[in-house]
Order: sequence, then structure tokens, then C-alpha cells
Amino acid sequence: MSRNLHIAIVGATGAVGIELLRVMERRSFPVSKLTLLASARSAGKKLEFRGEMHEVRELREDSFAGVDVALFSAGGGISKTFAPHAVSAGAVVVDNSSAFRMDPQVPLVVPEVNGADVAGHRGIIANPNCTTAITLMALWPLHREFGVTRIFASSYQAVSGTGAQAIEELRKQVEATVKGEPLVREVYPHQIAFNVLPQVDSFLETGYTKEEMKMQNEGRRIMHHEGFRASVTCVRVPVYRAHSIAVSAEFERPVSLEAARRVLSAAPGLRVTDDPVAKVYPMPLDCAGEDDCRVGRLRLDCALENGLSFWVSGDQLLKGAALNAIQIAELL
Amino acid sequence: MSRNLHIAIVGATGAVGIELLRVMERRSFPVSKLTLLASARSAGKKLEFRGEMHEVRELREDSFAGVDVALFSAGGGISKTFAPHAVSAGAVVVDNSSAFRMDPQVPLVVPEVNGADVAGHRGIIANPNCTTAITLMALWPLHREFGVTRIFASSYQAVSGTGAQAIEELRKQVEATVKGEPLVREVYPHQIAFNVLPQVDSFLETGYTKEEMKMQNEGRRIMHHEGFRASVTCVRVPVYRAHSIAVSAEFERPVSLEAARRVLSAAPGLRVTDDPVAKVYPMPLDCAGEDDCRVGRLRLDCALENGLSFWVSGDQLLKGAALNAIQIAELL
Repeated sequence: MSRNLHIAIVGATGAVGIELLRVMERRSFPVSKLTLLASARSAGKKLEFRGEMHEVRELREDSFAGVDVALFSAGGGISKTFAPHAVSAGAVVVDNSSAFRMDPQVPLVVPEVNGADVAGHRGIIANPNCTTAITLMALWPLHREFGVTRIFASSYQAVSGTGAQAIEELRKQVEATVKGEPLVREVYPHQIAFNVLPQVDSFLETGYTKEEMKMQNEGRRIMHHEGFRASVTCVRVPVYRAHSIAVSAEFERPVSLEAARRVLSAAPGLRVTDDPVAKVYPMPLDCAGEDDCRVGRLRLDCALENGLSFWVSGDQLLKGAALNAIQIAELL
Repeated sequence: MSRNLHIAIVGATGAVGIELLRVMERRSFPVSKLTLLASARSAGKKLEFRGEMHEVRELREDSFAGVDVALFSAGGGISKTFAPHAVSAGAVVVDNSSAFRMDPQVPLVVPEVNGADVAGHRGIIANPNCTTAITLMALWPLHREFGVTRIFASSYQAVSGTGAQAIEELRKQVEATVKGEPLVREVYPHQIAFNVLPQVDSFLETGYTKEEMKMQNEGRRIMHHEGFRASVTCVRVPVYRAHSIAVSAEFERPVSLEAARRVLSAAPGLRVTDDPVAKVYPMPLDCAGEDDCRVGRLRLDCALENGLSFWVSGDQLLKGAALNAIQIAELL
């Protein structure tokens, strides 16, 4: 679309909602009108966009009149209830929740991987899980070169993935620790400051969490690779806003470090940050606020025949959410 | 040895040294005389043991006269230089550094796994790497039941593994963040507060760190299993004193969750902490100060034929260092 668009943001006051505004500003996204929507609790708040204040309104079924693109980031329940209303009103929905990701009618898109899939949408396009999207930024170029069969991965996920309240909970727990005051837990079931929680999302019968299986389930759809397998442990760590993932990947074809470096260096949206002897490797603190993901710690895997180990970090709120959503909107 | 012993601690003022004193107190270790040794810088400090203050003396070649057991925890260089003097003086050395771990003349021992190896010592017994010891507490019972072939693992390592100065560095960085003051880095090359560092120990030519290869190299020796392979990513996280490891393990024989739970529940020094739906799983905060390691997040691995995924946490200063060393001394 070359014309200016009427954009709606559902969940405008959340951590991702705020980032959507900043990303549209940075990328000069063509906005003619902006409709900010949230729960009744947040209605009346004002948010700045391109120097002007915009009032947040309560999300309702009739909120989408005239909207061209509706960016949803308010949880799966809200998306399931309100996305159909947005589509009925003529909007294209880019949904950041997990509500439609496995719906075969809904393209699930990382623009650098399967941007062409956007063309098949019927009103809704799904934005992938943050850990999956960040991992695929490095795995996809490697897959094209060597043919991935399976991965073993562990995540180091920032509290931003849980939302603005979780960022505040970590900040408050740390402050209470320093002041010697009692720690308050409201968002996470256990203390997150100075701890790691081997649970992200709820548990399935298999013992994996939903979050852990997203890597395999969403990875298969995004890479169009039905045989892809992924065994993942997702872990919340006391980091504010960028995720990291340690990956051992097995491939069909022999892997060389030279070829791996070549395809990763050429990949859009990815920076090879890999000079370990100089202590240069991706770290979440360096990726916070950055559009590009970073990959490093490249090495031939010592427990796989055709295997590569690597470490990838990326801003959870950007490539893991808002940036990817805006990139999808740009493809429309 | 049933008689009371003259014990020397080399590196008495370090994080592990202090824990050695506490562990000997708790376990009523039979001490007749205590010699506390450290660098000249720490000489003159006084440390409490069983209600009495003991002065720390400067480590010298002639520090070991009359010593029965010398517990070394002052780094590989100190061990290489001074352990031979302790042995010459008639002491048995239990060495917590990596100096002798791969020496075929030196038993490398986790008492719950290969305690019998202690018998073959020639004056020095090596205490394993902390991450390896904690992982093996869960892997060994599974290996005996199913026959492990290889593992893929990622660690979440506390700053205690680096020493007392690193604990202080994390505390100071967090305090500076809360107060809005500039952060100081002295121990780690990068900020550790609110960050994760994908580097523990120095890098090898292969791209793995020395720490990462200890799992395979030390694991082979401790389990007497030359074919064991381990691809590991070791990561420092802003946690004070317990390590956690996410493991995907492949076995020769079919794995069942029932059998896995049975052998893990029967394993000494290990607690099965695994009721994920009730949000019960091992966490470093719960393991800090505990002798037992904890294992949980048990699940059949979705990317391996005979595979099990699990998550193990343990106190780095206890099972990962001081407790294991005292258990070795108890075997003597």
C-alpha cells in the first residue's frame, strides 16, 4: 500500500504497544490516522506519536470503522474476540498473540524468512512467538545452506516478554533487595530477581510448556519444513528486554564454519557478533533497543555429525514483537 | 580415617574456603587441628570455626608439616605449585581447581558416582567442575538405567563460581543501578547485572570454552564412559550462588518417565522437584545453601528417539565445590 493508512493499535499502553509507536516513527511508516485502543482501565491515557498526543480509547466491537491495519498486542483472548470485528470492518489484522498462529488460514510470518506468505492472508496475519522469531533469524539462513533436521535449544528470556508489569516487578524486587525490604511477587509465581524460572507459559501433558513447543510448531510453518524438530527449554532470566537462545542444530549436509559465517553475514536483520577471544559475542544488554538480532559463539557441534552450535540474542519487544509486526504491515 | 585430622585449607578466605569451614561444622567432620592458608594479602585475617577464631597464614612451601588433608581452592596455578609440597609433607590433597582433573594418575571424584576411585589416589584427588558435578548428580542414575550416549546442555551459572569478588561485583552493580550511579566492571569484562554472558572460562580453538568441554572430558572420567559426548553452552547469569543446567540426554535404551523418576528419586544427594502444573521445579534461589541438588522438568525429549529432557539446580559452592570436597575427604 503506497497511500497513508489508518492504523489501530490494540493494547496501545502495553510494552509492545509503546514499541509499535516508536518503530512506526523510526521507520517513517505512512500513518494518516492513529486509533489507540486498550482496556477500559487504560482509556483516557494519552500517548505521544510524532510529537502529538493521542488519547487511548476503550476497545469495543465497533472500534475499527475505517481502519486499514489493526495491530493487536493485548493477549490471545482479546485477539480471538476482537480480530474478527476488525476484519469485518475491512481492516487487515497483524496479531502478536498466539491466537491464530497455528490456524492454516492465517499466514505466520517472519518477513526475512517467509515474507511472501503475507500474500495469502484472509484478513489476519500472525506475528510469531518472540523466541521463535529471534532463533529463526539465525537458523533460516543456515537451513537454506545446510538443511536443518532438528535443534536442541535453551532460552534466556527477558521479563519484557511477560509485559510492562513484569518489567516493573523485576525493578521493584531489585530495589527492595537493595533497601533490605520484603520482596513483592504479583506477576511471576516465584521471585525473578537473582533467580531463573524454568517456566515460560503453561505446561502441556508432555511436560513441555506451550512456549517450548512454539519453536517446533511455529518453526515448521514459517520455514515450510514439516519434518523440523525442536527440543527446547524456555527459561525466564532477570534481564529487562532482550532474549538469548543457545542452539545446537543438526543439518542434513556437512557444515563448515566458513559457509555458516558467509550465509549469516549476508542475512538481513542479523549481525554476526563473533570474536570470542576478544570477548565479543551477543549479549542481551547490547541488543536492547536494536532492530538487528545478533549471532555468535559459532562452532562445529561436538556431539552432532553435521552440527553447528550458536548463540543468538535479539530485542524481544522489537524483532520479537513490534518490529516484526510493522515489517509485516510494510509488506501489505 | 577414624582419628581426628589436621586439616589445611588453601584459599581459606575465598567463597569456597568459607563454605569448607561451614560444611565441616555441619557434618561434624573430625578436625583436630585447622591450618588456614591464603595469599599474603589475606594473611592475618581471622575466620571462625566451631566458635573459635583461627588466624589465616600466608601459604608457603613449608605450610603443610603434619597436615593430614589439604583442601585446595585457590585456583589452578596455586594448586600446581603447592599441592606437590603438601603431598611431600604427607598430606592427601583434595583439589578444587582444574589443575589435576585430567591427570590419569589423579582420581576425579563425585562420591555418589565414583567414590570407589578415591582408593587409587597417589596423594591428590581432584574435585570436579561445579557444573559437571551438579549435572552428573542427575545424569548418573539415568545413565545406569538407560545408558547415556550424548547430551546437549546449557548452563545458567551463578556468580559464586567466579569467586567472592564476583558476588560483590553483582551486588555493587545492582546497587549502582538502583541509585542511578555509574556501574563498575572489574571481575567480568561485561556488565553482569541484568545481562547474561555466554562465556565462562577461556576459549579453545574449537570455539567451545574450557568450561564447556569439562562436561564431556570430566564426565567421561567420572562415569568411566569414554564414548560420552556433551555439547554445552555455559552462560553466566545474574544469580548469586546456585547453578542450573538444562539438559537433553540421548540414551542407548528406551526411556520411560516412570523409570526415570524411580532412579532419580532413589539417587543420594538429589531431590526430585517436579510438579510443574503446581509451578514446582528446581530454581537456583531454592537450592542456595542446600546440600542436595534438585532435578525436575522431566519429559521425554521430543527431538530424540531415546531421550529425556531435564533441569537440574544445585548450590555451586556446596555440591559444586565445598560439599563434594568434604565428601571426598570423608571417603579417605
